[in-house]
Amino acid sequence: MKEYINPPLSLWPTLCQRPSLELEFLEGRVKNIINRVKLSGDEALKELSVQIDKVSLGTLQVTEEELAVAETCVPPGLKQCIRVATANIAKFHKTQQEKTLYVDTMPGVRCWRKPVPIGKVGIYVPGGTAPLFSTLLMLGVPAKMAGCREIVLCTPSRPDGSIDPTILFAAREIGINQIFKVGGAQAIAAMAYGTATIPAVHKVFGPGNQYVTKAKQLVSLEGTAIDLPAGPSELLVVADKHANPAFIAADLLSQAEHGPDSQVVLVTTDTRMMEKVKKEVAKQLAALPRKDMAGQALQSSLLITMEDENDAIGFVNAYAPEHLILNTENHSEQSERIVNAGSVFLGPFTPEAVGDYASGTNHTLPTNGMARAYSGVSLGSFQKSITFNNSMKRGLPGWGPWWNKWPKQNNSSRTKGQ
Amino acid sequence: MKEYINPPLSLWPTLCQRPSLELEFLEGRVKNIINRVKLSGDEALKELSVQIDKVSLGTLQVTEEELAVAETCVPPGLKQCIRVATANIAKFHKTQQEKTLYVDTMPGVRCWRKPVPIGKVGIYVPGGTAPLFSTLLMLGVPAKMAGCREIVLCTPSRPDGSIDPTILFAAREIGINQIFKVGGAQAIAAMAYGTATIPAVHKVFGPGNQYVTKAKQLVSLEGTAIDLPAGPSELLVVADKHANPAFIAADLLSQAEHGPDSQVVLVTTDTRMMEKVKKEVAKQLAALPRKDMAGQALQSSLLITMEDENDAIGFVNAYAPEHLILNTENHSEQSERIVNAGSVFLGPFTPEAVGDYASGTNHTLPTNGMARAYSGVSLGSFQKSITFNNSMKRGLPGWGPWWNKWPKQNNSSRTKGQ
Repeated sequence: MKEYINPPLSLWPTLCQRPSLELEFLEGRVKNIINRVKLSGDEALKELSVQIDKVSLGTLQVTEEELAVAETCVPPGLKQCIRVATANIAKFHKTQQEKTLYVDTMPGVRCWRKPVPIGKVGIYVPGGTAPLFSTLLMLGVPAKMAGCREIVLCTPSRPDGSIDPTILFAAREIGINQIFKVGGAQAIAAMAYGTATIPAVHKVFGPGNQYVTKAKQLVSLEGTAIDLPAGPSELLVVADKHANPAFIAADLLSQAEHGPDSQVVLVTTDTRMMEKVKKEVAKQLAALPRKDMAGQALQSSLLITMEDENDAIGFVNAYAPEHLILNTENHSEQSERIVNAGSVFLGPFTPEAVGDYASGTNHTLPTNGMARAYSGVSLGSFQKSITFNNSMKRGLPGWGPWWNKWPKQNNSSRTKGQ
Repeated sequence: MKEYINPPLSLWPTLCQRPSLELEFLEGRVKNIINRVKLSGDEALKELSVQIDKVSLGTLQVTEEELAVAETCVPPGLKQCIRVATANIAKFHKTQQEKTLYVDTMPGVRCWRKPVPIGKVGIYVPGGTAPLFSTLLMLGVPAKMAGCREIVLCTPSRPDGSIDPTILFAAREIGINQIFKVGGAQAIAAMAYGTATIPAVHKVFGPGNQYVTKAKQLVSLEGTAIDLPAGPSELLVVADKHANPAFIAADLLSQAEHGPDSQVVLVTTDTRMMEKVKKEVAKQLAALPRKDMAGQALQSSLLITMEDENDAIGFVNAYAPEHLILNTENHSEQSERIVNAGSVFLGPFTPEAVGDYASGTNHTLPTNGMARAYSGVSLGSFQKSITFNNSMKRGLPGWGPWWNKWPKQNNSSRTKGQ
């Protein structure tokens, strides 16, 4: 962990920079994968599955039978957890439904804006070291709620050709039944351009490794919308002298163990806190099952002591973290001053993990400083809004003389037409 | 104009395709411009201004003096128009302000989502054949309303090194005072990366030619958000037998005269309408000041007669037009069935031009079928939303036992910490 005490403002931009993971060869390889899928569709998907994932697949689509079997494999306690998480996510996202508001901007001129579901959406759930059914819930629940007509799910199969039953159970629970055993950049390409088996969608959602992220970027240049430019997960903890170092250490580690490229930052106004947290981190790290991964992530992490609260909050807004914990006595006032962050966790009893799984807020959030301009995924991410104009006959006379004052460039023909 | 009568469904995808304007050399040239701006900042901007726009600029920033002079150059009638448009845009966008909604998803677990202005935004207003002060209003009014701290405006100067006074008057009217004489891809690069004179922003807005569009795409891959992937403007008119062919022709021409790459489509359920509209177009075109431009755009335009209303509305949703006029008797019912469009104009007395300028709805809209997944610009385009979680002490006991049911993967450390 790198330590800084009252870093000068001139150093802040450097401290806010995330380690760059961009690899030169990446774009070429991903373009090649996308082109293969465009050209040969399902055949390319099966070839790539053998080549990259070492799995030979018969059919790409998960069958009703596989879904039924999965149902029997998930322990009842876990099923209950998934149901509670689903209910909380639904409860929170339901409040985000916008109403259509009608405005008469001038007499006889009525305007409104109406949210409409995106017809076809694709959800990507990565494979890897843990089945990310929470990601499926975070994307599938609002997609269903928005009323998307067609929801396609792609997720890589395990080495034996099957999908983790928890994923399948969660999909069935929320009513998604078009599930395909495809992972990586090729899954994104399949959903963007369609194949004989996998329908093309209008917008692709979901996290993934650098191949997936690059594929999302590339298909977005050709007309398929994407949720967010994703990057490695991040946590910034702000702590004052009242914070419990054991809590802070646990929070930092819970993010660090996500993966070796996780970003972890502590900003404290208490000069003695840094040492206390370091001791706690060392203690807790030793007992972690994923200590190697967490240890790697900690190497590039930052511990920063700031002169005062102003500097601490100023740094948070400059860094624009994906996840922010305000483990401080006056977290309520401080939260009002946060302008750049994905999701904020307030007080000593709100660990980030609450929001990762089940409090109901969405865990698909802007990373890498993107929180300056991007929101996390919400119900609105699965909708677009259409504006409507209706000028009644009595509205028109008001336009005529007014119209003639505009410089003569366009639209002159329309007034003539009347 | 190309004519189709009851085109089979298999032909629809072809009819929905817009002419591709992508040029091979474009990306390389734009990348080169961006790199020059990154490397040499203001110096590169001035060099490019001489090279591309043939203008030698002293200072890039518009002075208070220039703003004051502009004020005296704009005729009072036009000033009044700008004020009315500003008021209408403000009135419509004000209804879009989202409230923060608090939800207790579980006892003791409070979640909310709060809209926050994007700190720094950039507005690009293109030069060209007409001063697009309406674009400035459509972007500047909601940017101000959202509360963006810093609003930067870039627009190319005229050959004499000045900016059109109407643009400057409109900017002053809505309170934008950081105005820079920079156009094209270099303006986008300057706002994305910053120069000594031009501040870097978090999100760039505004239409432009293919260079500007490509530059927006490229900077968006490196962390600057953009409003929309823009393309040439489009209009689709749906007309039944009750529609006045003179109105339809005027509407089609008002879009065609935007530029030679404008997309214009008529879909009618009346078998005799096509001929009537063709006659009217020929008549009105002859009298247009911009007839050459409009004539060029009409060459690639489509006239389609559909069997019935179902096919007509089906085709609209497949095409996903930027602008849609429903010049039909039952436009009200039909409007409920529109799921893919940017902005819709209802009935015989609502020409598209109403929304282009002053009804209050935003004219920055998704083109090229993007309306399937994208909305037009709104107040929310200048904000992002942050989610908050607050678990009270009494909330935590509910989590503990529940927590242990999740597969042991991440976050195990946090419960230990407590």
